[in-house]
Amino acid sequence: MVKAERPFDEELKELKEKLLEMAARAEEQIALAVRGLKDRDEAMACQVLDREEAINLLDIEIDEMCLRLLALRQPMATDLRFITSAMKISSDVERIGDLAVNIAERTIDLLKAPQLKPLIDIPRMAQMSQDMVRDAINAFINRDEKLARDVCERDDRVDELNDQVFRELLTYMMQDSGTISRAVDLILVGRHLERIADHATNIGEDVIYMVRGKTIKHHIEEGRATGLKSCSGGE
Amino acid sequence: MVKAERPFDEELKELKEKLLEMAARAEEQIALAVRGLKDRDEAMACQVLDREEAINLLDIEIDEMCLRLLALRQPMATDLRFITSAMKISSDVERIGDLAVNIAERTIDLLKAPQLKPLIDIPRMAQMSQDMVRDAINAFINRDEKLARDVCERDDRVDELNDQVFRELLTYMMQDSGTISRAVDLILVGRHLERIADHATNIGEDVIYMVRGKTIKHHIEEGRATGLKSCSGGE
Repeated sequence: MVKAERPFDEELKELKEKLLEMAARAEEQIALAVRGLKDRDEAMACQVLDREEAINLLDIEIDEMCLRLLALRQPMATDLRFITSAMKISSDVERIGDLAVNIAERTIDLLKAPQLKPLIDIPRMAQMSQDMVRDAINAFINRDEKLARDVCERDDRVDELNDQVFRELLTYMMQDSGTISRAVDLILVGRHLERIADHATNIGEDVIYMVRGKTIKHHIEEGRATGLKSCSGGE
Repeated sequence: MVKAERPFDEELKELKEKLLEMAARAEEQIALAVRGLKDRDEAMACQVLDREEAINLLDIEIDEMCLRLLALRQPMATDLRFITSAMKISSDVERIGDLAVNIAERTIDLLKAPQLKPLIDIPRMAQMSQDMVRDAINAFINRDEKLARDVCERDDRVDELNDQVFRELLTYMMQDSGTISRAVDLILVGRHLERIADHATNIGEDVIYMVRGKTIKHHIEEGRATGLKSCSGGE
């Protein structure tokens, strides 16, 4: 299996291709899970469960590929950081796949009852999250710090949309207790999508960190933290 | 900054100590956030927000330490896998810290209204999650596969407890719509704790993967997957 004779660049190219394939599959899983929910198509949700394994296997493959590159090539500086980042990013994408499965599970549950309401914001959140995942991986592959920052900035919009979904569903529950179980399921779907966007943001932060060096990571989080509830002031 | 003259073992020991410190801090954050909720102590919840930064900084320190070890020592086989695993595990612990912050935010929100009910299961989930985090890190440090498997197995119990919390809170909401907002907040706290346990499980899986080699990872997940809703059969 060890192909030390191949050019290093070729191996890096293969690593990038695997990551792109993995991310494309994860994106597809999000789309399928939410389309299954929107169109009330259980078969679509079931496909998500069936396809999870392929993403898990890609995670393992990428991990092994990175370990091999580290051991045989002993890369320095830029390449070293690229390869260790790839290992972390592949874990993020794997968990994005898990979250798509969680959405599909909620979908299968929701399809047992009549539709609560036509879904508008949740599919929009799904589209935003998918775009963030794709752009985060592209930012990584192309070492594109600008795109990575753009991904991180979009996270707030997904959070806002999720808050909106949350508040709307609370209103449903307040008005009619018969909607509670379905509304809670939809709230959880919103949370899963928000977390997918968080993972894409983590990837974006890793890219910025990789490109710029150590002092950048978590600064974005600090920026975000200013939006946190203040404790000294009280609300 | 580069201390290539130090023995490799000493550097590995320092890495382990940093990870232990980080995990201890994350554990403490979970405890503080949930104690703040249980005892209705806002100052405690606020402490969690104040202490987050230290965990983020440890994540960066560990990352830099690992990159330095990879670059300067070019470790092979066992040590290579140990160091790349440490990088992944430190990301998991950092996100556990984020989740403790999320719990503290929910706590601050919940303290604005009267207590919905005395909390029993949520503090129990918190204790279980804390134990899992500590054991997962110890399993890593000591390459203890048995302990790692034990951590992974405990994940189901946290999930069950979370389902129980969820169902009980649904009942509250159904009976009295005035409880909905607080009940949803508590459901989210339960979810955050469940996710902390998931991160501990991810660490456990990484340890098994590190100790046993590539074919093990995701097998545990496959095992778990048998508990998933079956699609072919229908329910």
